[in-house]
Amino acid sequence: MSNEVKPESLSLCPLGTAAAPEQELLCIFGTGDLGRSLGQRLLQTGYRVVYGSRRPHSCGPLPERAQVMSHAAAAQSANLVFICIHRENYDFLETLAPELKGKVLVDVSNNVEKNLYPEANAEYLQRLIPGAHVVKAFNTLSAWALQNGPSDANRQVYLCGNNAEAKQAVSVVATKLGFTVLDRGSVSAAKELEDFPLQLFPEWRLPLRLAVGLTAFFFFYLLIRDIISVYIKEKKDISFRIMVSLANKVFPIVSLIMLSLCYLPGVIAAFLQLYRGTKYKRFPDWLDRWMLCRKQLGLLALGFAFLHVLYTLIIPIRYYVRFRLSAITVSEVRDKNRTPEFDTTMAWRTDSYYSVGILGFGLYLLLGITSLPSVSNALSWREFSFIQSKLGHVTLFFCTFHTYLYGWDKFLRASSYKWYTPPGYMLCLVLPSVVLVLKLLLLLPCVDRSLTRIRQGWERTNPDDDSRKSLLT
Amino acid sequence: MSNEVKPESLSLCPLGTAAAPEQELLCIFGTGDLGRSLGQRLLQTGYRVVYGSRRPHSCGPLPERAQVMSHAAAAQSANLVFICIHRENYDFLETLAPELKGKVLVDVSNNVEKNLYPEANAEYLQRLIPGAHVVKAFNTLSAWALQNGPSDANRQVYLCGNNAEAKQAVSVVATKLGFTVLDRGSVSAAKELEDFPLQLFPEWRLPLRLAVGLTAFFFFYLLIRDIISVYIKEKKDISFRIMVSLANKVFPIVSLIMLSLCYLPGVIAAFLQLYRGTKYKRFPDWLDRWMLCRKQLGLLALGFAFLHVLYTLIIPIRYYVRFRLSAITVSEVRDKNRTPEFDTTMAWRTDSYYSVGILGFGLYLLLGITSLPSVSNALSWREFSFIQSKLGHVTLFFCTFHTYLYGWDKFLRASSYKWYTPPGYMLCLVLPSVVLVLKLLLLLPCVDRSLTRIRQGWERTNPDDDSRKSLLT
Amino acid sequence: MSNEVKPESLSLCPLGTAAAPEQELLCIFGTGDLGRSLGQRLLQTGYRVVYGSRRPHSCGPLPERAQVMSHAAAAQSANLVFICIHRENYDFLETLAPELKGKVLVDVSNNVEKNLYPEANAEYLQRLIPGAHVVKAFNTLSAWALQNGPSDANRQVYLCGNNAEAKQAVSVVATKLGFTVLDRGSVSAAKELEDFPLQLFPEWRLPLRLAVGLTAFFFFYLLIRDIISVYIKEKKDISFRIMVSLANKVFPIVSLIMLSLCYLPGVIAAFLQLYRGTKYKRFPDWLDRWMLCRKQLGLLALGFAFLHVLYTLIIPIRYYVRFRLSAITVSEVRDKNRTPEFDTTMAWRTDSYYSVGILGFGLYLLLGITSLPSVSNALSWREFSFIQSKLGHVTLFFCTFHTYLYGWDKFLRASSYKWYTPPGYMLCLVLPSVVLVLKLLLLLPCVDRSLTRIRQGWERTNPDDDSRKSLLT
Repeated sequence: MSNEVKPESLSLCPLGTAAAPEQELLCIFGTGDLGRSLGQRLLQTGYRVVYGSRRPHSCGPLPERAQVMSHAAAAQSANLVFICIHRENYDFLETLAPELKGKVLVDVSNNVEKNLYPEANAEYLQRLIPGAHVVKAFNTLSAWALQNGPSDANRQVYLCGNNAEAKQAVSVVATKLGFTVLDRGSVSAAKELEDFPLQLFPEWRLPLRLAVGLTAFFFFYLLIRDIISVYIKEKKDISFRIMVSLANKVFPIVSLIMLSLCYLPGVIAAFLQLYRGTKYKRFPDWLDRWMLCRKQLGLLALGFAFLHVLYTLIIPIRYYVRFRLSAITVSEVRDKNRTPEFDTTMAWRTDSYYSVGILGFGLYLLLGITSLPSVSNALSWREFSFIQSKLGHVTLFFCTFHTYLYGWDKFLRASSYKWYTPPGYMLCLVLPSVVLVLKLLLLLPCVDRSLTRIRQGWERTNPDDDSRKSLLT
Repeated sequence: MSNEVKPESLSLCPLGTAAAPEQELLCIFGTGDLGRSLGQRLLQTGYRVVYGSRRPHSCGPLPERAQVMSHAAAAQSANLVFICIHRENYDFLETLAPELKGKVLVDVSNNVEKNLYPEANAEYLQRLIPGAHVVKAFNTLSAWALQNGPSDANRQVYLCGNNAEAKQAVSVVATKLGFTVLDRGSVSAAKELEDFPLQLFPEWRLPLRLAVGLTAFFFFYLLIRDIISVYIKEKKDISFRIMVSLANKVFPIVSLIMLSLCYLPGVIAAFLQLYRGTKYKRFPDWLDRWMLCRKQLGLLALGFAFLHVLYTLIIPIRYYVRFRLSAITVSEVRDKNRTPEFDTTMAWRTDSYYSVGILGFGLYLLLGITSLPSVSNALSWREFSFIQSKLGHVTLFFCTFHTYLYGWDKFLRASSYKWYTPPGYMLCLVLPSVVLVLKLLLLLPCVDRSLTRIRQGWERTNPDDDSRKSLLT
Repeated sequence: MSNEVKPESLSLCPLGTAAAPEQELLCIFGTGDLGRSLGQRLLQTGYRVVYGSRRPHSCGPLPERAQVMSHAAAAQSANLVFICIHRENYDFLETLAPELKGKVLVDVSNNVEKNLYPEANAEYLQRLIPGAHVVKAFNTLSAWALQNGPSDANRQVYLCGNNAEAKQAVSVVATKLGFTVLDRGSVSAAKELEDFPLQLFPEWRLPLRLAVGLTAFFFFYLLIRDIISVYIKEKKDISFRIMVSLANKVFPIVSLIMLSLCYLPGVIAAFLQLYRGTKYKRFPDWLDRWMLCRKQLGLLALGFAFLHVLYTLIIPIRYYVRFRLSAITVSEVRDKNRTPEFDTTMAWRTDSYYSVGILGFGLYLLLGITSLPSVSNALSWREFSFIQSKLGHVTLFFCTFHTYLYGWDKFLRASSYKWYTPPGYMLCLVLPSVVLVLKLLLLLPCVDRSLTRIRQGWERTNPDDDSRKSLLT
């Protein structure tokens, strides 16, 4: 979103001669894939392009209409030089320092893995040619996007560099190519920009591993407890239940645990602040990392909840369910003495159970929608934290309550604890119950007041005060 | 998205010495929470920070590496001064006017409630020190984001001010801190920026109240009509139906009414323009306010429709439904004489009813998705209005038709009107039917032509013409 | 998102007199609807406005507080002139060339259809008055937005022009009016900007037509095969099945075909690259166009899948289904000799079928969510292609497998092929199976290696090599 478009283009084409404003000459060092793609695109957009090459007369196929020269000659003919060379070959550029002095060098390079070199490629380039103005740009785009223009994940050109006018010149080019420009500051941000194309959901790794681990654990736990145990005791094969019934037990369990893991770190942080009496001490590293992946934990929890909803809704279409319902009706008919009695408590309980579940899922979805980037950008900070914190805890409450209603009086029946193990839904209730109780404690007026003061910057220094407060919490 | 990065950073670190470009000195007035958070972050980003304090030698814990001076000395040492002081204490700054002359003052203050003061804090500050360049910025961020960098709802720094270079200087700092900058114009926009962090869904209030009111009304209406009446007449307790059956009546009713309320103001506005014969007269205030919350009305309607869908889909899992279906089958078996006849009309009617409902819900969702900020930004205005207006009315038609199919011939049966009251779905059909009929009228070629002319700027001035037109509509 | 706000506003109101910075005078040529709307809004924002008119004393109702003058006088009084005139009347502006010299002319015009004129309106204007600085802007906004400020699809002002400072001046005005500014480069982009408001989902046309065609084909195919055939053979009217059963066959079929059409062009392109041994030859036009509408194909496929899910979930509520289930139970009871046997294979098969379908739909949704603009912008290119390509093919596999499970052993039974025609789900399996097999071929290590080399820019030139490779693929 470059708006200031002053520099070179204007010095080259003064206002009176606006008839042919596009004929600016740009230089590209390197005739590899990237150089060719970029050159082709620049030519299409109306620029003139000159390649700098070691062997100007035998450098392989290049776009038509592009000139090829020696590096030195090419550098002198243009103000802006794209460096489409691998970092390994940068050193020869040092010899071109006089020709590159005062030029804008656009470093588009990427590395094959992170932390391969101590300094960013752009910083290295700046060090090699201190007289040039290095701008890191275009490296986050795919070669496809460089050749064909912006598409889905390739709309934004991030750039950084120490010289403002150099950045401006590059952002003019990027804008003409159809991209949106985002300035990321000085060249010290280059490291970050160079790591960006290499990343593959780094912040999702921990939550995903957790989700897989929890899913696997509860799958095997319930497999043994509900299916293998039946087979051992009664020699009955109910393994077909794995596909839907078992899955529909595992998914809500994992969802509820992940949701409470999403709100637990906030509660822990609050108690830590209360205990320490200040907000200025850094949290332990594990807590910081945990807090940074809360959004991912919540979204994965939503995914599992969504699967739980679909698995629940297909229940009545299942062959097994239809067969069983029909069998019950048949036995009712044949057993003339037994007339089934309508159980109002049962109706209340199950309907409440469904109703609370649906409302919980609705809130869950609301949380998910507000974490879409464009929605959360449109919210004020107060609105965002209202939804994610207040509504989040209400969601957790609804989902926990849904599970308690499911259990109902089975918590007290010995028969629930087959082989002395609790059913899965009881296991998964532990964590959300703890989170909700702790959150309730934090909402007590006296605790809330201390916490608010601490978060407004107040610090407890008096040791007496200290002991009193830690008792209180 | 600051792209022009010229000013001070460059004057301080000329191009030749780009080796250490980050050592710019910034000044912070105020050693409270905000000042400390901001200072800490600025230091981390590579700036040098000097605090201005009344008691430079006893001003409480400040970030390491930060200097502390008197206000006057601190102001003179830097070009950019962050004012992290409550507005109540601004007056003392007047005495520093000579030192602050020509400096960029960043007003980061917020008020505890709206309209506390006649003028915005930044305007007040500018009035106190006319020689300085006041920029309102950073006030929409949470202290947490100021200390830890951008996160979900805290990515954008809105700024405004009268001096372009001052704004530029601030936007350079904001960009270095990792934020995206949005320029909101001159200092007269400061009021708006200062109100932003205080707002809690202001445009959602009216629609939410309406939704709650409608829900409550129909809940009690149906509670009395469907459940209490049965209890009084037949002494039968069917209160368990509240949780799902009753809810699943209230939700679609409220959804349909809200959806028609979303399209009613547009129709009213069109008739008003036709009646007045001009588009240049302002609409009455209530209509303006109504039109501004159409999006919220529609999204709430979608929420209720979503709940209706889920409540409908769980019907066959419910204990009550299974019990009743089984009872029907049992009675069919025992009653040997009666063989149930398959009713093709019934099959057609119910299937159409479901099918129309599903298609309506699909369109409903489409409307919801296109009102996501990032999607509507990507649409041209013609596309957006095609979806929201054309498809919107089609959606309303589908949902209304769905409800008519549900009613079928019950509209004509006396038994439907228990206690002389109509069932809920009949009540809720009034409004959408009116909206659809009025919209159909507007689509009549003669009316449509007049309206189009008026919307293109044509005005009816002739009084004869006037009377003719108002008859026509 | 204009951040640099230097030019005229400052030259008119130097810093010392910041007290009244809003009184800049702007000129509007044209007193039609657009001119009036724009003038009203400019006046509200604090600008002074002067209209240029041919008949300054009889030009119809204009906003209060606006002045009216002759064109020449108005042009001379302001630096920035909005041209709110139809292109057809531009020619008279040529006579004003001396007065307009050095002024910023804002072309806000639109045409009623595309390609009406050989050159863009803004380019034509620039040609008429070469001494002025033409900026194309505001034309993508509705008149409503010009009068009332930004709303949903009217938040962004696209601008283009050859002169940077002229663009800057316009972007200052746009920012003050509350819009976000996106610079689209030089005046040669004006054509694109002028086409933008005329477009109505151009990239959706082909996919939509395809979807309608496929839906119609399969609807009639299945209507004849499943419903009319029964009527002819058995004189039984099962036409009620059209509304849900038939629809629920057509939707998943169309969804699966569209999804495979979304991944087929990528596979074709890969084979073409392998065959040609280079990535630098352009793809044939049909392939290019196909690849550009993959996103739309995928989203439509998702829409059909969504309808399929809802139509499936309402199955157990349907009157027909309940009737039939009850009839089965009744016949079971009456037929004392037959006791239904539980079929474990059947239970496994149907449950797997549902489970795979749900997981496939979950992945489908994930693909849809990541193609929301704000989500895909937040992803690195590697992440985006991981989701859209890897997860996309996994989704296709799940959905295809879901359909195979649905068919199960019916593929081999002669009775499936009524009237020698295959059922719809068999027809629709052809394309996805082909795509998956071809994709598997591409994943073979030897093929994958060649392809990767080609995509990194390697070219096969040796004719021997050529023949070997084409055999290989």
